[in-house]
Amino acid sequence: MAASLSTALLTDKYELTMVDAALASGAAERRVTFELFGRKLPPTRRFGVVAGTGRILEALERFEFSDDQIAWLEAQDYLAPATLEYLRNFRFSGDIYGYAEGECYFPGSPLLTVEGTFAECTLLETLLLSVLNFDCAVASAASRMTIAAHGRPCIDMGARRTHERAAVSAARAAVIGGFVSTSDLEAGKRYDLETVGTSAHSFTLLYESEPEAFAAQVARLGPSTTLLVDTYDIAKGVENAVAAARAAGGELGAVRLDSGDLVAHAFKVRGQLDSLGAHTTRITVTSDLDEYAIAALGAAPVDSYGVGTRVVTGSGVPTAALVYKLVEREGVPVAKESESKQTIGGRKVAGRLFDDEGYASEELLVTGGTWEETQSVLKDAGARPLQHKIVDGGMLDPNLWGPGAVEEAAAHHRRSRNELPYPAWRLSEGEPGIPTRVSAIEDVRS
Amino acid sequence: MAASLSTALLTDKYELTMVDAALASGAAERRVTFELFGRKLPPTRRFGVVAGTGRILEALERFEFSDDQIAWLEAQDYLAPATLEYLRNFRFSGDIYGYAEGECYFPGSPLLTVEGTFAECTLLETLLLSVLNFDCAVASAASRMTIAAHGRPCIDMGARRTHERAAVSAARAAVIGGFVSTSDLEAGKRYDLETVGTSAHSFTLLYESEPEAFAAQVARLGPSTTLLVDTYDIAKGVENAVAAARAAGGELGAVRLDSGDLVAHAFKVRGQLDSLGAHTTRITVTSDLDEYAIAALGAAPVDSYGVGTRVVTGSGVPTAALVYKLVEREGVPVAKESESKQTIGGRKVAGRLFDDEGYASEELLVTGGTWEETQSVLKDAGARPLQHKIVDGGMLDPNLWGPGAVEEAAAHHRRSRNELPYPAWRLSEGEPGIPTRVSAIEDVRS
Repeated sequence: MAASLSTALLTDKYELTMVDAALASGAAERRVTFELFGRKLPPTRRFGVVAGTGRILEALERFEFSDDQIAWLEAQDYLAPATLEYLRNFRFSGDIYGYAEGECYFPGSPLLTVEGTFAECTLLETLLLSVLNFDCAVASAASRMTIAAHGRPCIDMGARRTHERAAVSAARAAVIGGFVSTSDLEAGKRYDLETVGTSAHSFTLLYESEPEAFAAQVARLGPSTTLLVDTYDIAKGVENAVAAARAAGGELGAVRLDSGDLVAHAFKVRGQLDSLGAHTTRITVTSDLDEYAIAALGAAPVDSYGVGTRVVTGSGVPTAALVYKLVEREGVPVAKESESKQTIGGRKVAGRLFDDEGYASEELLVTGGTWEETQSVLKDAGARPLQHKIVDGGMLDPNLWGPGAVEEAAAHHRRSRNELPYPAWRLSEGEPGIPTRVSAIEDVRS
Repeated sequence: MAASLSTALLTDKYELTMVDAALASGAAERRVTFELFGRKLPPTRRFGVVAGTGRILEALERFEFSDDQIAWLEAQDYLAPATLEYLRNFRFSGDIYGYAEGECYFPGSPLLTVEGTFAECTLLETLLLSVLNFDCAVASAASRMTIAAHGRPCIDMGARRTHERAAVSAARAAVIGGFVSTSDLEAGKRYDLETVGTSAHSFTLLYESEPEAFAAQVARLGPSTTLLVDTYDIAKGVENAVAAARAAGGELGAVRLDSGDLVAHAFKVRGQLDSLGAHTTRITVTSDLDEYAIAALGAAPVDSYGVGTRVVTGSGVPTAALVYKLVEREGVPVAKESESKQTIGGRKVAGRLFDDEGYASEELLVTGGTWEETQSVLKDAGARPLQHKIVDGGMLDPNLWGPGAVEEAAAHHRRSRNELPYPAWRLSEGEPGIPTRVSAIEDVRS
């Protein structure tokens, strides 16, 4: 594998030094369970949204050390020859259970459960966290925005506001959170997402006059295009835009507003469009939107929202604060005891409970018992099981990652979010939408 | 070029539709100038730090559309055959002037000035912004942290808190901002950065007891390693750590504290180490640090800071809010007039002025005149010119991107930051460290 495609060095150095020391001491082959979860939700988040699972499978497929990488590590001179040999032959051969992409999650929800030898589970730690911390942060923000938009389409336009490769993943995560499309072409191509975009202010400024610029755009993109009307005077821009589309024999698709007081402008522009008879011409707005700005535009005559900075940076929460903790060693629960960062030992099997009206009421995490026993106990308790085996003895489930995976994750998110009680949908700070309870299997049975 | 390496689709769709419409109207070949700058600095930032220029050159080298990408665009059916042909043959052939990597910048500073045809300058827009918005945000946060650390080393440990590829760039940017090393191996390999890391809590939990875990680590990493002492009881951990190193015939290199009240723990642990005679054993701290936490630890006996989340997410400012604006068309200044987003037309040539004591006093942006005339005027005014030609007729300057480039950028940042007056170094909210003035060349001459 070419070094540029390998994901094996997207890793903290300490994962390799731990493997090195554990191989030498004989502990590297101990069977362990790691869980990936958030200790709590970030402030203002009533639920998190799982995104990135498909990308993890993509990345695992490429988690092999290339000759070039091994040579570099060898030259760094801190790993034993036996460790280098282990890395050279490394393929993850354990099991991974995961929440479905699009699932809502809560404090303690084990988004991933990774079982295998200490060495193989440790090597994946950083990569798993990087992918999920970023993608879940974006999907969670996107979901809040699509709640605030009340069915009006939200479009990701944030590519320029985050790292160029992160932008591709952000577009994917935004769509899982309910966005309908993205401006990012690489994301469109790679994940089969709808792409959108027409023109910027620079295009208008390229021409001697606004009518000339609009005519040039309509000539190629047709009258159904979206014209950006605020390069100069907005009222004049709207007039020019409608005229440009009609000169080409059609009614204008939409106008875009990208500055100023969007609520006030939307009302004015809608009135102007209607007075021009352009009743079918839509209004799209795009300046510094987040879930609060979108909510504030709820009563304004706006047809779609283009969101940039705030969606790709998680709207104030750029990382989901997920952690990866050892919870079992050779079947024995283990836990760190340091203050403020305690973990609960033992593997957790998760189910969602519902009240009599069918709304989600509790995130139940059951400790003890085998996977099979716990699943059956969850079923008897009326819970929806939340974990699926996504990697089985190192074999990846291709359904989670091929064509249609993003669409399915977005559909799953709609279903999962619709199960939540009303308080979970609120934008304000507050408690998680449903409480999390950790119970021993005996207590759930009884 | 393989599609996976090409950077050409890391682009908003509207760049391509604008090129398409401009090619059809005949305006695509007009000579233009775009500037990349920030309208203002984010709150709490007294200066920004340029980072990412070297990565831009790396990305430009790969900015070619692959056959596979052209086929995908063709199937999308919104670009004219002539546009597809233009893209198929595309290589940027214009000029780019840029601030040096590591330079401090202020509102309006033209970090990049891109000159060429409208089509070629437009195609680069999204990629240039993505790279600089992310890298500058991280470098600017890193610089504030290294100011707060007063010479104690800061280490990037944030790989798991941001997108896996963004993490690699974040490490690079953090080092430009003054960090000494990173935990991210891919960054270490690609940019020749020092890497660090020893072990996590999971390593301690893998063993039956803490002494057993410490012995295993010291056996491979030597007594000079850093032992993590807060998995169980800290005082007991310190005792075990010092004993483990001494059993291996040396004095312990360092202990790491990763939870709780770091100030209080640092004093206690230093006292304990000294009472054990371990005077050379250092203390490194790593839990949720940012520039304020680092400043608060200034009086505590701490030897180095491991920073995670906050450096890779820009410490509250995850994007530098840089924009890319058309400022000249065929030599004529142009500017958008929309409220709250005005731009100043015309290309700006930048110089930094100094007061009698040698401190920077003003960011001077001169409009009008040729590059040569303006450089000479700046020189006469005693200003340090800030822009360098980094791409000349499509040819990239290899010095800005090969081995040593990051080290040189970090050194340049130290020089540039040392020129700033004291208020620019403050962590609190306030005005930019120096004011920006835009002047016509005639006014500067006189």
